Amino acid sequence: MAAQPKQARALKTRDDILRAAATTFDELGYKGASMREIMRRAGVTLGALYFHFENKEALAQAVMLAQTGELTANLDSEGVQRIVDFSMTWAHQLNVSPLIRAAVRLAVEQQSLGIGDDISYGDFEAIFVGWLETAKENGELAPGVVPGHVAQFLVGAFTGIQHYAQLAGSLPDLPTRVERMWQLLLPGIATSEVVERIVVDPSRGCANNHPGRGTTSTEPRA
Amino acid sequence: MAAQPKQARALKTRDDILRAAATTFDELGYKGASMREIMRRAGVTLGALYFHFENKEALAQAVMLAQTGELTANLDSEGVQRIVDFSMTWAHQLNVSPLIRAAVRLAVEQQSLGIGDDISYGDFEAIFVGWLETAKENGELAPGVVPGHVAQFLVGAFTGIQHYAQLAGSLPDLPTRVERMWQLLLPGIATSEVVERIVVDPSRGCANNHPGRGTTSTEPRA
Repeated sequence: MAAQPKQARALKTRDDILRAAATTFDELGYKGASMREIMRRAGVTLGALYFHFENKEALAQAVMLAQTGELTANLDSEGVQRIVDFSMTWAHQLNVSPLIRAAVRLAVEQQSLGIGDDISYGDFEAIFVGWLETAKENGELAPGVVPGHVAQFLVGAFTGIQHYAQLAGSLPDLPTRVERMWQLLLPGIATSEVVERIVVDPSRGCANNHPGRGTTSTEPRA
Repeated sequence: MAAQPKQARALKTRDDILRAAATTFDELGYKGASMREIMRRAGVTLGALYFHFENKEALAQAVMLAQTGELTANLDSEGVQRIVDFSMTWAHQLNVSPLIRAAVRLAVEQQSLGIGDDISYGDFEAIFVGWLETAKENGELAPGVVPGHVAQFLVGAFTGIQHYAQLAGSLPDLPTRVERMWQLLLPGIATSEVVERIVVDPSRGCANNHPGRGTTSTEPRA
């Protein structure tokens, strides 16, 4: 019982560090971000920082992992609509959340940073497969559509259209680009009845999913 | 008349440099590649190198631009089939051509390299728009489909699924991933008659489009 407040404080500290790291990665990139600068922004000691994260790479991976919880915590739909809502939340949060922006920047850059693996991509693919299996059980998918193939394609497509929008200086346009993607993609994925019913409007990304700057939903690893 | 052989030699030198730069970028990345190493591999003097390209950034941009000609030179189909053939050629060449691999690596990394603009992406988008306009004139597109929207989406999607395949160590699997993408996407883009007719087999990328290590199709800028 006595351990609870202490544990809550540790979680809070970890979350503060994660958010400070995110704004630092978002602004300065992985290379430009130093543990000292992250410590300064988080308002913690270097000892506390290294207690929670053994090095900068561990912090970068935690930021990439944290986006999963951040983006799925408030979804209240299921099946195909859930993936659409997720994508719109993501497109919206990329414009307003340093954590999501940093996570995506790190994920795209990880190859050139020497921290190359597909950790956050694989995470999302597994999550999408689950949602698409539900869609399949509910009879939402077109005949012959394999959840795993759609999930794998979506992870790549989301990453790419975000990257292209960002390079073109058109990030605010991302929700519209995602909406068009769904209009092109849904007829090949879902039954015509579902295509009629699904709402792909960008407002799906802010209406039911705007938790403000709350805590991340990831579990601490320590 | 007397100028011709000299010009041909200059073109050859420029092409040698471009290919040496591509293998260097492909192996060492933009940061790891030095003008001296590129000079060594091209078998030219540093003076000749700087005569053709004023700096490393100019070389990187030339490599990114060269992929366009390299990937389109041997296409013999039109409309929707042409884009499919292009994508299969690209998926195949990424596994065998240092120039294509270097171009894609540079395009994805350009943001973190400080050479951020969307030069090669914009190139491809414009090319795709042209092919899709032809498809539209030929009645291949589904009602309401806007060539510009499809082109923009495809540029992002291609980039993303390639990036994801590469991170996952599954580049040899890219042609299959592209095939699945088309199976998901075609019903939303093309008329049902065209969906039946279009061939999305990975062999489209090697059969009619395997020019070996010929010259690039870009015009020299000097």
